[in-house]
Amino acid sequence: KAIDVLDDISHRRYNPLRGSYVLVSPHRTKRPWQGQQESPSKTTLPAYDPACYLCPGNTRAQGDANPAYKNTFVFVNDYSAVKEEQAEYHPEGNEAESFFLNAEPVVGKCYVLTFSAAHNLTLADLSPAEIVPVINAWIEIYSSHLSPQNPLATVAPVTHLPPDAPTASLTKPKMQYRYMQIFENKGAAMGCSNPHPHGQVWTTSSLPEEPAIELEQLKKYRVKHSGKHLLGDYVALELQKKERVVFENDGFVVLCPWWATWPFETMIISKTHKRALVDLNDNEKAQLAEAIAEITRRYDNLFETHFPYSMGIHQAPLEGTEEEIESSWLHLHFYPPLLRSATVRKFLVGYEMMAEPQRDITPEQATTRLRSCGGELYRRKLE
Amino acid sequence: KAIDVLDDISHRRYNPLRGSYVLVSPHRTKRPWQGQQESPSKTTLPAYDPACYLCPGNTRAQGDANPAYKNTFVFVNDYSAVKEEQAEYHPEGNEAESFFLNAEPVVGKCYVLTFSAAHNLTLADLSPAEIVPVINAWIEIYSSHLSPQNPLATVAPVTHLPPDAPTASLTKPKMQYRYMQIFENKGAAMGCSNPHPHGQVWTTSSLPEEPAIELEQLKKYRVKHSGKHLLGDYVALELQKKERVVFENDGFVVLCPWWATWPFETMIISKTHKRALVDLNDNEKAQLAEAIAEITRRYDNLFETHFPYSMGIHQAPLEGTEEEIESSWLHLHFYPPLLRSATVRKFLVGYEMMAEPQRDITPEQATTRLRSCGGELYRRKLE
Ligand SMILES: O=P(O)(O)O[C@H]1O[C@H](CO)[C@@H](O)[C@H](O)[C@H]1O
Ligand SMILES: O=P(O)(O)O[C@H]1O[C@H](CO)[C@@H](O)[C@H](O)[C@H]1O
Repeated sequence: KAIDVLDDISHRRYNPLRGSYVLVSPHRTKRPWQGQQESPSKTTLPAYDPACYLCPGNTRAQGDANPAYKNTFVFVNDYSAVKEEQAEYHPEGNEAESFFLNAEPVVGKCYVLTFSAAHNLTLADLSPAEIVPVINAWIEIYSSHLSPQNPLATVAPVTHLPPDAPTASLTKPKMQYRYMQIFENKGAAMGCSNPHPHGQVWTTSSLPEEPAIELEQLKKYRVKHSGKHLLGDYVALELQKKERVVFENDGFVVLCPWWATWPFETMIISKTHKRALVDLNDNEKAQLAEAIAEITRRYDNLFETHFPYSMGIHQAPLEGTEEEIESSWLHLHFYPPLLRSATVRKFLVGYEMMAEPQRDITPEQATTRLRSCGGELYRRKLE
Repeated sequence: KAIDVLDDISHRRYNPLRGSYVLVSPHRTKRPWQGQQESPSKTTLPAYDPACYLCPGNTRAQGDANPAYKNTFVFVNDYSAVKEEQAEYHPEGNEAESFFLNAEPVVGKCYVLTFSAAHNLTLADLSPAEIVPVINAWIEIYSSHLSPQNPLATVAPVTHLPPDAPTASLTKPKMQYRYMQIFENKGAAMGCSNPHPHGQVWTTSSLPEEPAIELEQLKKYRVKHSGKHLLGDYVALELQKKERVVFENDGFVVLCPWWATWPFETMIISKTHKRALVDLNDNEKAQLAEAIAEITRRYDNLFETHFPYSMGIHQAPLEGTEEEIESSWLHLHFYPPLLRSATVRKFLVGYEMMAEPQRDITPEQATTRLRSCGGELYRRKLE
C-alpha cells in the first residue's frame, strides 16, 4: 500500500485545519538519546493535601477559601492573564509606528476549574460518568458568557444558573467577550504546577490566533464545498480508512490526525455537526465523556506513567457572525510531549521553531500503539 | 508616555514578520511558581571528553572518526531528518484523499557543525575573532549548496572549496535543494543532548513553513512600499525609538522585537540590506561575530548560568525567484525559554498552543535587563 512507503521516507504532510505543514522523519527514532530526562510524576499523592490551593475547604494564595465542593469547582484565576478592567491605552505615532509598534488592549476573564474534589485523581482515573460533571461545568461557564445575539444562545441550557450550579457563585462578565478558550495543562512537563486535577478557561475580548486560523479554514472549505464541513468530511474519510482511528462511539471519534505534530497527538472530533458543547444532548455528553476517558487512560497506559499533555476545546466563539458560528465544529486537541518512554520527550525546538514542525514517528505508528493499550488503567492493575 | 501604560495592561502585539499576534500580560510574573525546575547545566566540563562524539579525533556513533580539527568541523548528521535518496511515493486516491491525506516526499541533507574544538566552550565564551570561523563555515556550507541561477551565486565567495576548508571533505549535494536552515539548540532545556558547542544545518527540497511565511510578508511589504524593506524600515524605527535596542554596532542591531514571544527573545538584524551571509564583507562578518558574542554573553550573565536557547539564521533560499532573493533580509532569531531565574522557565503550553502565544514581561522590560548585563562573562569574573 502507498501509505506503507511513508513509514520509511521523509515527507511533509498538509494540515487543512491550519493550512500549515509538518515534516515527518520516521527513521529518526533510531537515534540515541543522551539529553534531558523528564522526571515521571509521583503516583503516591494523598486524596487531600492541606497545602493544595485547589482542594475543598482550603484557602488560596490571595485569601479566598474554597467551598467543600463535591465534583467540580470554578473560580476566577488569582493571577489572571487578562482582567475585566484596566487602564486605557491610546497609541500615539506616525504611520510606521502604528504598523511596527501595533498594540491593542485585551480584556477578559480567566477561570480555574477543578475536575474532582480528590487531589490524587486525574481525568484518566475518572469514569465517564464522573467526567460528565466536568463537561456540564464547561457548558455552564460557556453558556453564561454567550452573546444573546449568538444563535447558540437559544439552545444553551443555562440562561439563569441554578443556585446549586458550581458556577453560580460567579459574577456576570462586565461586557460581552469574543472568545472562550477551555484548556488543561497536565504534568510538570507541560508547565502545570499543581497536580490537583484542573483546567483553565481564558475568555478574551479578542479572537486569538489559533481559533481564528481554524475558523478561516473552516469557512473557506464550506464556501468551496457548498456548505459541507471540513471536519465532517475528514471524519467520514478517516472512519472509512480506519488507519488513524484510536477509538470511536456513536457520537465521537478519537484519532491521530494525518497532520499530527506531537508524537502521540490526538483529536476528539464530533461525528455530526456540533457547533459547541451546548449542542450536545445528555447522551452525546456521555459519549464525549467516554472519549475523554478512553484517550486519557490510553495515554497513561502507553508508558505506564501520568502522561503529560495540553488539551484544548475548539468550538464556536461567544460572539461572532452567523457564518462563524455555523462553520464551527466541536473538537478537542491533545498535545502530549512524550516520545519514547516516561522520561524521553520530543523537543520542538531549533528546526521546528525556525523552519517547520518535525516529528519522528508516523501518526499511523502512533495509532497502532494507542490502539493496543486500551483496557483498565495500569495503576489499577498494580493495586 | 503611551508605551509605559503597556507595562500594566494586558494587550496583544502584532508581528509583521509573521502576520501573527502575541498576548502580553505584564502583571503575570507576580504569580508564585511551584512547577518544574530546570537543572542548570554543569559548568565544570573538561576541554576534551573522550566519550564525546564531537571532540577532535573521536569516533562517532556510526563509526566515522573526527579529524584533529582546530576551530570548526562539519559532517553529515548520522541521524539526518532528511536524506538525499529514498524510496519514491506515489499517492493513490480520490479528491478527498488527496486533500485530507496529502503528503509530499522531502529529500535533502543535514549537517552538524562544531563551533570550537574545545568541549567546554560555548559561543558566549568565544571572542568575536573566534566566532568569525563559525560564520565562515556557515558561508561555505551555504555557498556550496547555492543554485547557479541564484543571483547570490555571483557574490558567493567559494565556488570551489579550498582543500583546507572545514567543509572541503563534503561531497556535492546530489541535487539542487530549495532551502537551508542553519540553527543551534543550546542546553538540555532546548533538546540538546551534547554540550560540545555545535549547531545544525538542515537543507531541504521544500521551503519550510516559517521562512515561507516570513518571505511572503517581506515580499508583500516591498510591493506595498515601492521597494522598501520591512526589516530595514523596522530597524530604522527601533534605532530612533531606542526602547528595545540591546546592542548595536555599525553593521548590526540586537533588539528585543516589539512582538517577542519568549521572555528574553531577541533578533540580530542587519542594518543595511544583506540578502544572506554571503553578502557580508570581512568587516561586516566581524560585526556580526561581535553581535553574536554580545547577546550570548549577556544571556549567560542575566541569570549567571549557561542560558539555553534555540537560535536560527533566516536568509535567502538556495533557489528561488529573483523577487524572493531580493526580498530576503539577513536576521537571526534567539528563542530562550528562561523567565525568572536559571531554574524557572516559561512554558508555552495550553493557552499558547490552543489559542495564542502569551508572555509575562514586556519586551521593553526584557531589554532593560539585557542592557544592564553587558561586560565580562560572569564565569570569568568567578575564576
Ligand atoms: O538533532 P538533535 O540534536 O538530536 O535533536 C534536537 O533538535 C532537533 C531539531 O530542532 C529536534 O527535532 C529534536 O527534537 C531535538 O532533540
Ligand atoms: O496558568 P498557570 O497554570 O500558572 O501557567 C501555565 O499555563 C499557562 C497557559 O497555558 C502558561 O502561560 C504558563 O506558562 C504555564 O506555566
